[in-house]
Amino acid sequence: MLKVVIIGSGNVAQHLIRAFQNSGKALLVQAYARTPETLYHLLDKDKVTDNYNDLAEADIYILSVSDDAITAVSEQLPFKNGLVVHTSGSASLQNIDNKNRRGVFYPLQTFSKNKEVDFSTIPICLESDTESDYKLLEELAKIISPLTYSIDSRQRQALHIAAVFVNNFTNHLYSIGNDICKENNIQFGILKPLIKETADKINSLTPIEAQTGPARRKDTSTIERHLDFIKDDNQKAIYTLLTQSIQAQNG
Amino acid sequence: MLKVVIIGSGNVAQHLIRAFQNSGKALLVQAYARTPETLYHLLDKDKVTDNYNDLAEADIYILSVSDDAITAVSEQLPFKNGLVVHTSGSASLQNIDNKNRRGVFYPLQTFSKNKEVDFSTIPICLESDTESDYKLLEELAKIISPLTYSIDSRQRQALHIAAVFVNNFTNHLYSIGNDICKENNIQFGILKPLIKETADKINSLTPIEAQTGPARRKDTSTIERHLDFIKDDNQKAIYTLLTQSIQAQNG
Repeated sequence: MLKVVIIGSGNVAQHLIRAFQNSGKALLVQAYARTPETLYHLLDKDKVTDNYNDLAEADIYILSVSDDAITAVSEQLPFKNGLVVHTSGSASLQNIDNKNRRGVFYPLQTFSKNKEVDFSTIPICLESDTESDYKLLEELAKIISPLTYSIDSRQRQALHIAAVFVNNFTNHLYSIGNDICKENNIQFGILKPLIKETADKINSLTPIEAQTGPARRKDTSTIERHLDFIKDDNQKAIYTLLTQSIQAQNG
Repeated sequence: MLKVVIIGSGNVAQHLIRAFQNSGKALLVQAYARTPETLYHLLDKDKVTDNYNDLAEADIYILSVSDDAITAVSEQLPFKNGLVVHTSGSASLQNIDNKNRRGVFYPLQTFSKNKEVDFSTIPICLESDTESDYKLLEELAKIISPLTYSIDSRQRQALHIAAVFVNNFTNHLYSIGNDICKENNIQFGILKPLIKETADKINSLTPIEAQTGPARRKDTSTIERHLDFIKDDNQKAIYTLLTQSIQAQNG
């Protein structure tokens, strides 16, 4: 069984701890947390350390820390030639100190503290310096998800940006929808079937084929009526820019 | 059984024809189409007319035509005091000629020609001039969906705008995600679980609670790295505006 140590105690770290424990197919030997108490609801006390010098031996060390901390934490690790991977969508593999073998183990999903995720549906993007380390990472990833992808640092950066568009920005559009409902005494729930169908549609149509609405059909009078109705400057700016972008796309 | 006539042959008209026929609980007595052939795959020839003077008697006439055509078509109807409703999210009830009783029957969903929809999950927004007509519309709507809402013309306009944000604009963000993947030799499918989870999340969290990402956590260095990576001016403008909007929302 592959032995894993997880370094970090944030959202991703906690979801990974849960996933490996539930799998029963990897040995989560230890986790590191600056404040060990933050992991006591997930792990026995003796499996959590706050001292790098106490880190147990493992096949793979997963650094699940903020992007800015990857270099500093990897420098502090007291061992050499271990396999150390980070979980960031945005940081390069090179950010890891090269006294160890380096890799990336990036689960492409949005993690919130109070929302369980099913890891078996999550794509895991892998990268390493050597073929043999890639195989090791792939073996580990397959324990929690069948969806593994070889993605280099540049592609991962692109993917991270694409994820910002389809997740962060999309969620913000939901938030604006929520605001508009609230201002007009409409329950937000009425939009949920539309939100679901919008996401479902791209499983059978390309996003271009799925595009509907006044911008797509260049329905200027509806667009003008909408802009006249919207009072919030920020909403107006977003409406205008995205309408132009859809129209440009459709020539 | 309520007798219904559908006037129009576009996407919404065709989906409604199918829904009422499949229900077995309303009598779709006739449909009007300028080009009757467009409906022959759905209805017997003798049930389709292209002549307003041949319109059959019905309890409810559903005008499923473009917003701009609602007034003109309703004026051409040769009868008086029937219940005539349109299906538009954006047009007012008043757009219907007042020689007939007026109403709105707006299914809040995105309809594409090549994608079946399950009407039982679609909210139907109803409006009428009188209580008794509202009851009639509600009876008809409940045949195809349990989700009926009383929504006045002003609320419906707001809802239509909210729908543009959560559907049209969201789909356009998917499209940008698709473009970014393509440019970097990544299959778009890798983003689909994230898109699904983004939509699922708002069933258990509010959009504000569900918000994650560099803008939300004011991670300036990642935002700068992203903007540096993005070469397309339009993508850059959308990234910048939506990032600012998320940051403004989170104080």
